[in-house]
Amino acid sequence: MNTEQFRSAGYQAIDRICEYHDTLRDRPVSSQVEPGYLRKLLPSSAPIEGEDFQLIADDYQKYIIPGLTHWQHPSFYAYFPTSSTFEGILAELYASSTSNPGFNWAASPACTELEAVVMDWTAQLLGLDKAFYNISEVGGGVIQTSASDSVLVSTVAARSRYIREHPDVAMEKLVIYTTTQTHSLGKKSGLVLGLTVRALDVTAQDNFALRGDTLKVALEEDIKAGLHPFILIGTVGTTSSGAVDRLDEIADVAKHYPSLWLHVDAAWAGVAFACPEYREAYQLPAINEYVDSFCTNFHKWGLIHFDGSCLWVRHRQHLIDALDITPEFLRAKNGNAATAIDYRNWHVGLGRRFRSLKFWFGLRARGVKGIQKYITDCIKLNNKFSQSIYESELFSVVTKPSLAITVFRLAPKSLPHLRTPELNTLNRAFYARLAARNDIAITQTDLNGVFCIRMVIGSEKTLESDVEHALELMKDEAMISLKNWEVIGNGRGRKTSVILSQTH
Amino acid sequence: MNTEQFRSAGYQAIDRICEYHDTLRDRPVSSQVEPGYLRKLLPSSAPIEGEDFQLIADDYQKYIIPGLTHWQHPSFYAYFPTSSTFEGILAELYASSTSNPGFNWAASPACTELEAVVMDWTAQLLGLDKAFYNISEVGGGVIQTSASDSVLVSTVAARSRYIREHPDVAMEKLVIYTTTQTHSLGKKSGLVLGLTVRALDVTAQDNFALRGDTLKVALEEDIKAGLHPFILIGTVGTTSSGAVDRLDEIADVAKHYPSLWLHVDAAWAGVAFACPEYREAYQLPAINEYVDSFCTNFHKWGLIHFDGSCLWVRHRQHLIDALDITPEFLRAKNGNAATAIDYRNWHVGLGRRFRSLKFWFGLRARGVKGIQKYITDCIKLNNKFSQSIYESELFSVVTKPSLAITVFRLAPKSLPHLRTPELNTLNRAFYARLAARNDIAITQTDLNGVFCIRMVIGSEKTLESDVEHALELMKDEAMISLKNWEVIGNGRGRKTSVILSQTH
Repeated sequence: MNTEQFRSAGYQAIDRICEYHDTLRDRPVSSQVEPGYLRKLLPSSAPIEGEDFQLIADDYQKYIIPGLTHWQHPSFYAYFPTSSTFEGILAELYASSTSNPGFNWAASPACTELEAVVMDWTAQLLGLDKAFYNISEVGGGVIQTSASDSVLVSTVAARSRYIREHPDVAMEKLVIYTTTQTHSLGKKSGLVLGLTVRALDVTAQDNFALRGDTLKVALEEDIKAGLHPFILIGTVGTTSSGAVDRLDEIADVAKHYPSLWLHVDAAWAGVAFACPEYREAYQLPAINEYVDSFCTNFHKWGLIHFDGSCLWVRHRQHLIDALDITPEFLRAKNGNAATAIDYRNWHVGLGRRFRSLKFWFGLRARGVKGIQKYITDCIKLNNKFSQSIYESELFSVVTKPSLAITVFRLAPKSLPHLRTPELNTLNRAFYARLAARNDIAITQTDLNGVFCIRMVIGSEKTLESDVEHALELMKDEAMISLKNWEVIGNGRGRKTSVILSQTH
Repeated sequence: MNTEQFRSAGYQAIDRICEYHDTLRDRPVSSQVEPGYLRKLLPSSAPIEGEDFQLIADDYQKYIIPGLTHWQHPSFYAYFPTSSTFEGILAELYASSTSNPGFNWAASPACTELEAVVMDWTAQLLGLDKAFYNISEVGGGVIQTSASDSVLVSTVAARSRYIREHPDVAMEKLVIYTTTQTHSLGKKSGLVLGLTVRALDVTAQDNFALRGDTLKVALEEDIKAGLHPFILIGTVGTTSSGAVDRLDEIADVAKHYPSLWLHVDAAWAGVAFACPEYREAYQLPAINEYVDSFCTNFHKWGLIHFDGSCLWVRHRQHLIDALDITPEFLRAKNGNAATAIDYRNWHVGLGRRFRSLKFWFGLRARGVKGIQKYITDCIKLNNKFSQSIYESELFSVVTKPSLAITVFRLAPKSLPHLRTPELNTLNRAFYARLAARNDIAITQTDLNGVFCIRMVIGSEKTLESDVEHALELMKDEAMISLKNWEVIGNGRGRKTSVILSQTH
């Protein structure tokens, strides 16, 4: 492909992306393909001769787009949002045009330096303590691929520090603390490192937040048993329900255990710190005062493309002590200058994409106010949704709504006798109906044995009318689920028809 | 930014990328900025109000481009190449427009299914055994971020299998085998996992390849000492010199140690298997018959954008046994169907970019022949370069040239008395002169105490005349280095002026 062919294919791609975004609302949010659809459509090997790009571009429209779940769709309420903004697309476009793996300063100075700058911009945006800024030259921030990678390197740094301080401790005695609500990244970190993970209990009464006393008891038990807990992975905004661990209480306990590393995973909720009004309730003061490392994924709720997992550490030296390797062929000029961070020693990989460009474009194009508005708009829509759930005769919240997530279940007020096993059966049937639809994407979860539905708002395209429509659609499916449930006898003869007329 | 603003900013980006690529040859290959240049130019925080995108796009040209090292420049001979093709830029553009983290099938069916297909296309392109194809449903391939990530998950799978088979072995007794020439990813894997790494010796006589006997002796020693070597990270095409471990001999030894996992890192050289004529010499038969996992980075020499590290395993179950976590909120419809791979259990992260699109675009646009031609063109250019080194009175090769890499040093034939310490001093001075130039990018290395220069050819833009120019430039700098060296007395009074006239 020569330059002029690229120019016309590029214009066409831009036009098709415009068309995609303008018509997104009219598409099914979930893909309607069946597993194995694509292999049937494609040849079993690459072509021998190169093909015309127009054919490839047209095949993308024909074969790939119908197989996508549209995460930016106004009716996408599943998982957490994944940002794709016009500014971000442009940043990714420019970045891909000069592919350069900035593993050290000389490998591409702008790549390293822009990352150091935008990580300070984002730290300031969130109100993080200056100890975490790169200009501190003590702490600092780095862009990782995902929150799992951020937790992994934090755990490695914690283990490395712990073993330096306790050289005789066997790896089999080390313990990673999470809670039963911690994202799978906690367990995965343990699997990768071959270390024991202990998930501490949390309760519905505490809205699934880890309390200081629970930590205290666990530490005492484990240390008495000869074990060595060396890191606690706390969460601000759990995946299941947006729960916020009581970092203030945790810090009070942890200060008696100075070798215990505190990592806070705020993959989704952390960007809400951009709005000062959420900082106290979501534990920013404790983060600023106590934690060793903090992660939030701007690629979730922060209007920055995947991959943009931001990790800040209070002492960069712990990362470098754990991960530094500088072979001869990487000893480039300026490689060790104080102003030039060697980011390859801050994560697993050596090569890296030019990820900071999308932060620079996104933060500048939106400004602090633009990001704050987006986040508060999502929260307002969720407040409206959760208010409707509170007022509903059909549904009830399972735990306190948090920022832009509401976890609820079908639990008709007219059927107060139903216990959790029955409600779980009913809600599984209800969820199956929602999951079978292609005009809404939503997910389930389990909170200490209670099966529930998660509603998360995050698409920039979602309007108040979309949320109202989602509610109506849920009511319809709930009524059908109730009716079916009565017919097949789960209602055990009790009349649910009374609520069919009352609540619809 | 609305759709129409995006359209014009997108057209402009395409035009500017065209201009960048058309003028690349005229730019300095290395950046001329000093450490800290960018922070001085940028404000210390994100703006409060959003900025006009034209200003941002212009700042990219003004502040970022001058701070880049241009890895696609015709005079970039450093490290290994990093691909950036027009087809790849278009693929990244389309992928960024529908950001979707395909952590399971339902999260975006096309994202999972296309990856499964293109990993089979690339396996076939390289002549890998069908055991590694995804359609085998036993082995399979996955796209990782970098070769370090590929080694890490392979080591985790190996450790997990070993511990299942030997449940009483302490982690402190486990050993990862590399060679002294293995890429830093071997040592890093040990640092991340907290495991011992033993680097086996290789010799200049063997062109820095690991021999079977060396492995045999090490295994016997370590096992006798109560240690448990559980993985060998072999290399096809080392970073320093393109050395190829003797996998045939290694396999002969390893078959007596069935718990020893064989991983082959062919990050750079592996794509040369696309050309059947290199398969035997670069050990493909042994890879196909014996190894447990194999990695090559198409983002290096394979015309696919970073990140495109391809990892194939003979038994996918070992990865899944080591890494599988499926919490309730990820149990999506079709998630466990036989045709739908849950790729999140094949790597560290949960979310992932739509990386397969660039493989699909790139492999189709070039075809098998296009990729073969690019690789053989690079090898031809390197053969021409290494031939000139062989014939030179000034330079000599340090080890056998390999594919598109030649490792050489300044060692004038007229000064046969010089020993390695003197030659190292001379070559450090020579290299410093090359590194100070902005019209060539090249790197140094150390081979068992011999300081040398690495010349790697990989840019699609590099022509025969560029290589000739590089040689002339090296001769010029060599002559100046020799002259300076004589003046400051390193030549110890011996006349080098004789070669100044003979060889220039």
